[in-house]
Amino acid sequence: MTFTSQAKTARQASLDLLMLTRSQKDGALEAMADALATAEIDVLAANALDVDAARQTGTSDAIIDRLRLDSSRLAGMVAGLRDLAQLADPVGDVVRGWKLSNGVSVTQVRVPFGVVGIIYEARPNVTADAAGICLKSGNAALLRGSSSAINTNRATVAALRAGLKSVGLDANAVNLVEGGREVTAEMMAARGLVDVLIPRGGAGLIQAIVEGSKVPVIETGTGNCHLFVDASADVDMAVSIVLNAKAHRCSVCNALETVLVHRDIAATFWPKALDALAGAGVQVHGDAATQEYGDAVIAIEPGEYDAEYLSMDLAAKQVDSIDGALEHIREHTTGHSETIVTRDRAAAQRFTAQVDAAAVLVNTSSRFVDGGEFGFGAEIGISTQKLHARGPMGLSEMTSSKYIIEGDGQIRA
Amino acid sequence: MTFTSQAKTARQASLDLLMLTRSQKDGALEAMADALATAEIDVLAANALDVDAARQTGTSDAIIDRLRLDSSRLAGMVAGLRDLAQLADPVGDVVRGWKLSNGVSVTQVRVPFGVVGIIYEARPNVTADAAGICLKSGNAALLRGSSSAINTNRATVAALRAGLKSVGLDANAVNLVEGGREVTAEMMAARGLVDVLIPRGGAGLIQAIVEGSKVPVIETGTGNCHLFVDASADVDMAVSIVLNAKAHRCSVCNALETVLVHRDIAATFWPKALDALAGAGVQVHGDAATQEYGDAVIAIEPGEYDAEYLSMDLAAKQVDSIDGALEHIREHTTGHSETIVTRDRAAAQRFTAQVDAAAVLVNTSSRFVDGGEFGFGAEIGISTQKLHARGPMGLSEMTSSKYIIEGDGQIRA
Repeated sequence: MTFTSQAKTARQASLDLLMLTRSQKDGALEAMADALATAEIDVLAANALDVDAARQTGTSDAIIDRLRLDSSRLAGMVAGLRDLAQLADPVGDVVRGWKLSNGVSVTQVRVPFGVVGIIYEARPNVTADAAGICLKSGNAALLRGSSSAINTNRATVAALRAGLKSVGLDANAVNLVEGGREVTAEMMAARGLVDVLIPRGGAGLIQAIVEGSKVPVIETGTGNCHLFVDASADVDMAVSIVLNAKAHRCSVCNALETVLVHRDIAATFWPKALDALAGAGVQVHGDAATQEYGDAVIAIEPGEYDAEYLSMDLAAKQVDSIDGALEHIREHTTGHSETIVTRDRAAAQRFTAQVDAAAVLVNTSSRFVDGGEFGFGAEIGISTQKLHARGPMGLSEMTSSKYIIEGDGQIRA
Repeated sequence: MTFTSQAKTARQASLDLLMLTRSQKDGALEAMADALATAEIDVLAANALDVDAARQTGTSDAIIDRLRLDSSRLAGMVAGLRDLAQLADPVGDVVRGWKLSNGVSVTQVRVPFGVVGIIYEARPNVTADAAGICLKSGNAALLRGSSSAINTNRATVAALRAGLKSVGLDANAVNLVEGGREVTAEMMAARGLVDVLIPRGGAGLIQAIVEGSKVPVIETGTGNCHLFVDASADVDMAVSIVLNAKAHRCSVCNALETVLVHRDIAATFWPKALDALAGAGVQVHGDAATQEYGDAVIAIEPGEYDAEYLSMDLAAKQVDSIDGALEHIREHTTGHSETIVTRDRAAAQRFTAQVDAAAVLVNTSSRFVDGGEFGFGAEIGISTQKLHARGPMGLSEMTSSKYIIEGDGQIRA
């Protein structure tokens, strides 16, 4: 089947999704979960083929670990689908409403986008997660996974579609998009067939889609996150937050990448911070001023302030004032999560007002910028763009809205 | 000055806009209004140059009428700026907020986009309107008007900037972008420098920008609007609404373009409708079935169902059922405003659920789909896309949001 005809079947299925009640969608999610659990042997066998192929082409252990499924990971995917059934349905939520002076009523309600394309890399759990989130939000899904996970994705999508059929729904609500790179180009050009594209993966994938797509895109995930230790900071608090934001889980987008330290507190902050960071296995890369505070600080290379390390490395820089911190952040931010540690109310206010990011934090860890921590229950990603959704995207962010306008024959004078 | 350096000065000015109170912004709008009123002679003289040049190149009277300013139209632009000062400030509005279980507070607040590019055709009033809306919503404006209005736009922007300076603000909050077509291409490629582009104008302009831009775009304005006269419709109401939606002002995007008539009511509807439409000077273009109801109906040509006439012409088609109407709308809609006239509750519910458009109306005129009619006070356009804003865009829709997250040292366990 060509991509265009597949997208048209998804569009047709999306019309049926519009008419489903929450109970019907929750029943479908449970059926998808049941079918995926039942297909465990098939899915794990398919995954073993993908893992073998990846090994033969010399794929790194880290990537193979992402690709690999086992019973426990598959159980997590199944549980994720069941969890979605427990969440409120955003479709039909009234955003606002009022009456015109002539009695015409205007109601803005949440509606599904229609057809959502997800382009992602080799994490097989995304296949089930994204299919479930799209279904719950009333959207048909076009899932474009990595070719390295093709056998796993085929087996997973076959199970999810069997689940949909088992409750009498159109299996075309969930689709695996197969084919070479030209198919990704077709998805990006499919204005009118696909309502929104959401890339999930590394910065390269996301940039390519954001810059090349004619279909509206929601940009997710790149997080070059900063923390500014203000002159008035509680030093122990600052050390604790830096350690948590960097070392709690260093490979994720809300992890800390650069610490900016006010010169008036550097001599108090760094000895404690370097001890704590060394204890956790974090390597600090600093400018000349920061290197003065310990031999453990290695010299930072040009360009490193723009890097997302996603590792146990941390960039550091000394600044003369909050202005210096704001300027550095303005130049290097990816607009994800930026933090200040301070006891000064004016500094906190200025930082939260002037830093341009999805989340701006005061005296707490950027690791809280997460759909699960926010209580959204499910997350398709963290938007770093300014249109539509900004920050963690839950089910509500997977909807558009529509005005329903009702009268009794009123016309415009 | 190159476009890039101009965009950077706008970015710098946008940082100051972030810190302004509502009072300061309202004072700036009043100062811009005063300066524009004071510059009346200059602006009208500049406009006369543009009108003369347009006449010499054989521009149509309709376009020259759009381009032409007089004292009354200029007074309208001045009043528009003063009206904006009366509207609530969306910046800082709390969208929602809650506390995490550990006491961390999460607050989602509205913030300006930053730098907004408006690309528009030869209506000089857009220059002042867009500058004012951007300023009130805290955004710096890059105004890319038509070359045919260049003298008018220069004089207008000079006045607006003088107004900003007179109250001590950075004039670079309002910028006229000059130069050839290559500058439009630069604007469309300026990801990171420009936060959002809003095209205002004909379908051709909008499509070119939507398809070519790397900067996120808000698509506005194209309205191929339908009205379905259901079998159960009150015929007098249907005639009245069709007449209003078509003939009240036929050149605008929320005007009716196609009427779809259920076959069971056609013989009752058409005689009355054709009388009323003929009386208003509307020419009906119909399919064979519709032509049976009167000699005044001329045969519709292929492709006309996809046209926005924006004139006193109305396409018509007979359908066998609501399914036929839904299918026709699905095929031809631009997602603006779609209407059903019916007494049947189930038909109204199905139509509002299944029609995919910014506004879906029951028993009232699509002419109400308008920021002014909605009570928004100001409107930058009517979004026909599904991301970010859908339908009339007021000041709130000219903002993004940001999460402010505050704690007392909490870290993630």
